[in-house]
Amino acid sequence: MATTWEEHLENNLDRHIEELFDLLRIPSISALPAHAGDTRRAAEWVADALRTVGVPRVELLPTAGNPVVYGEWIVDAALPTALIYGHYDVQPPDPLDLWDSPPFEPVLKDGKIYARGASDDKGNLFVTIKALEALVAQYGAPPINLKFSFEGEEEIGSPNLPPFVRENKALLEADVVLCADGGQHGPGEPSIAVASKGIAACQVNIVTANTDLHSGGFGASVPNAVQAAVQLAATLHDSTGRIAVAGFYDRVRELTAKEREEIAEVPFDEEDYRTSIGVTELWGEPGFTPVERNWTRPTIDLNGIWGGFSGDGIKTVTPCEAHFKITSRLVKDQEPGEVLDLIEAHLLRHAPVGAVVSVDRFAGSARPYTIERDHPALQTAWETLGDLFDRDPYVERAGGTLPVAETFQTELGADLVFYSFGMPGSQVHAPNENFLLQEGFVMGRRAYCALLERLATWKPERG
Amino acid sequence: MATTWEEHLENNLDRHIEELFDLLRIPSISALPAHAGDTRRAAEWVADALRTVGVPRVELLPTAGNPVVYGEWIVDAALPTALIYGHYDVQPPDPLDLWDSPPFEPVLKDGKIYARGASDDKGNLFVTIKALEALVAQYGAPPINLKFSFEGEEEIGSPNLPPFVRENKALLEADVVLCADGGQHGPGEPSIAVASKGIAACQVNIVTANTDLHSGGFGASVPNAVQAAVQLAATLHDSTGRIAVAGFYDRVRELTAKEREEIAEVPFDEEDYRTSIGVTELWGEPGFTPVERNWTRPTIDLNGIWGGFSGDGIKTVTPCEAHFKITSRLVKDQEPGEVLDLIEAHLLRHAPVGAVVSVDRFAGSARPYTIERDHPALQTAWETLGDLFDRDPYVERAGGTLPVAETFQTELGADLVFYSFGMPGSQVHAPNENFLLQEGFVMGRRAYCALLERLATWKPERG
Repeated sequence: MATTWEEHLENNLDRHIEELFDLLRIPSISALPAHAGDTRRAAEWVADALRTVGVPRVELLPTAGNPVVYGEWIVDAALPTALIYGHYDVQPPDPLDLWDSPPFEPVLKDGKIYARGASDDKGNLFVTIKALEALVAQYGAPPINLKFSFEGEEEIGSPNLPPFVRENKALLEADVVLCADGGQHGPGEPSIAVASKGIAACQVNIVTANTDLHSGGFGASVPNAVQAAVQLAATLHDSTGRIAVAGFYDRVRELTAKEREEIAEVPFDEEDYRTSIGVTELWGEPGFTPVERNWTRPTIDLNGIWGGFSGDGIKTVTPCEAHFKITSRLVKDQEPGEVLDLIEAHLLRHAPVGAVVSVDRFAGSARPYTIERDHPALQTAWETLGDLFDRDPYVERAGGTLPVAETFQTELGADLVFYSFGMPGSQVHAPNENFLLQEGFVMGRRAYCALLERLATWKPERG
Repeated sequence: MATTWEEHLENNLDRHIEELFDLLRIPSISALPAHAGDTRRAAEWVADALRTVGVPRVELLPTAGNPVVYGEWIVDAALPTALIYGHYDVQPPDPLDLWDSPPFEPVLKDGKIYARGASDDKGNLFVTIKALEALVAQYGAPPINLKFSFEGEEEIGSPNLPPFVRENKALLEADVVLCADGGQHGPGEPSIAVASKGIAACQVNIVTANTDLHSGGFGASVPNAVQAAVQLAATLHDSTGRIAVAGFYDRVRELTAKEREEIAEVPFDEEDYRTSIGVTELWGEPGFTPVERNWTRPTIDLNGIWGGFSGDGIKTVTPCEAHFKITSRLVKDQEPGEVLDLIEAHLLRHAPVGAVVSVDRFAGSARPYTIERDHPALQTAWETLGDLFDRDPYVERAGGTLPVAETFQTELGADLVFYSFGMPGSQVHAPNENFLLQEGFVMGRRAYCALLERLATWKPERG
């Protein structure tokens, strides 16, 4: 009689850790051209790992950059198909001197696996392969159809993922995407994310004259570009912190009482939040808690401003140009293009006297992502985590933007469920990155086995 | 019988031009250490020129930088004493390729003397020496007591002039200072300046957190330093362009009807002013014409602003600090320190939520300068120019700051009369700098002879 996946995972833990260490030893730093060979080697390593557990179709699919490791195991067309997403590239390890052990020499210490990529994302990615191995050990095949799409450019902004997904829609077709990149609220505190914000970005340029002018000769009677820029930028919010761009909130839904309740249930220490970043007082749209703002309210953020003289001392100049950069975080039902139209119209309408205002829109916008709360796969993930952790997962939302979620949703029509096991203390993108052995690696393998098993009873409605 | 000064000037014009050319050939560029020897040579040349016309006491007086050429000819303690100010250093000539002839090879072409320093200030300075030569030719001595103070650091901001004047008060004591640096309204259009603005400067620093933050994770709920900076800077003016700092205008006198009339008499082509600098619409304090603003109204000028990200593309950052620079131009009765107090109090009072605001004051402030309209020397200068040009000089004011005027006034108690012969087209600080032969050099020599002669009847009240 075959072992159960539970037994298989327990019996093979040491080997699985050793294998993960092999992967972590490859410095697959996508940002550094000198590591192009390592990055390729990591792709091949991951492909081999998929082949080893029995995935019948495994290929490196080319993109304009690093290849996507594609795997496919179709067991029965009637069963649901899950596409598992992750990435095999890692961040650069700098600053090296702040690491307690070398970033590409993984060690297990105090219950944590330390290495660059331990959590982001090699540990989380490898969890899914070892879960499959365990399911195969029990059943001889996965309980549902599986596809794998592991990219090698997430740490440089996934520039080639959207075209790859667009060009391979049929290949990638799935009922749900499981995202093996991300984390839980904390050790022993499961969570499930149901939204991330979209983003739209632009640069605003203000020109007031054809040259910088002497402030003594001209300053009293001609427009000053820096003056115009601060006046203009200050119109984007009212004095309370609410956005003053006409129409900006038109599509934004009110939070329901239930949503506010869910958000309030998630532990948040305002004092700790504030003092850890050296902020004397919080700020933002009135009528919402800081967490509500971070998770559910759209923003217009001034990312930078410059104009005129910024050297030491005095320069008596009336500057002729100034610039500022905006990113706007968007929530459900807001469209990046439409929001940029509103912002641009506002800026042109409020152009100060004598200021020629132009707006350059940046590529890289993304729609907000949300998954319906009653989505069967999300519901199953929620219940699975609840059972494993023996408590209800928190319902969370991301204040940031996860373009991959929106890419899959838009291109494949498949919603994405965040299902991964990093922790707030995982130090991703920082020295001493780590992955918890029990709460991360061990729990992650079990959680994937349980979820995939339970999804087998789902009968997705297909277009 | 001696020739008259008029005859002497006519008979010696060619020689005077040749001598000026000698001075113009010395590249006495104070900004460039490589020209330190040339600058010294120019000082010695000017000292020799004073000796040659008979000035009994001529010395190079040391400063922490280039020496002051000091000359003194006391004819009778009962007569008025005029201190003539000018400078023997020049601006760098760059960009060289825009000059029609080499900057240190003077040429006379189409009625203009072309060379670096032709107008600013070697031509104007030399005019005073040759006027003295002509007066000596007629009278054997100057008609009043003369002192000369020609500095060698005007083009680098006269850093050592204020201490020099402070330390040599007794030596420099005079009833009036005649400034041989500057110009007339235009060819055939004499003018006399009666005021220049003061200046006070500071840098404003805004800090909102101890680190730049990710705008997705934090932007909706924490203060943004760039946002705070634009909000704060925008409070300095109201929407009409009037300064909104409490108390800022308290000491500022209303313009009298006569002053407004005088200012309106000075030709000003608003369309030409605007289009020559590429400005679409003028701006400034309401209730005043552009010239009234430039000449008589105090300002708060934003000279520069910076904070957050200013590179290419997008950075999703919530900046933790931002800075802006202010210069404030001051008019009669405003004190730099008091104005900075008002500005700082305003900024601290208007500090946005969560913004820690600090103000760094810069050295280099200056009081505004004014000379009373009925000052006998000013009146004499006005009448002299009126007679020579056969029309009333315009009464003008400088929008910029002329620290030398305030230095002499404060340290010596002697008012300064601007009396020099550059023109708007003299291209000072620019390629093809020039000095008009007739309206500048010839007229300048005559104007100094006539003024010094007429000042002999003045009986200054001495403290």
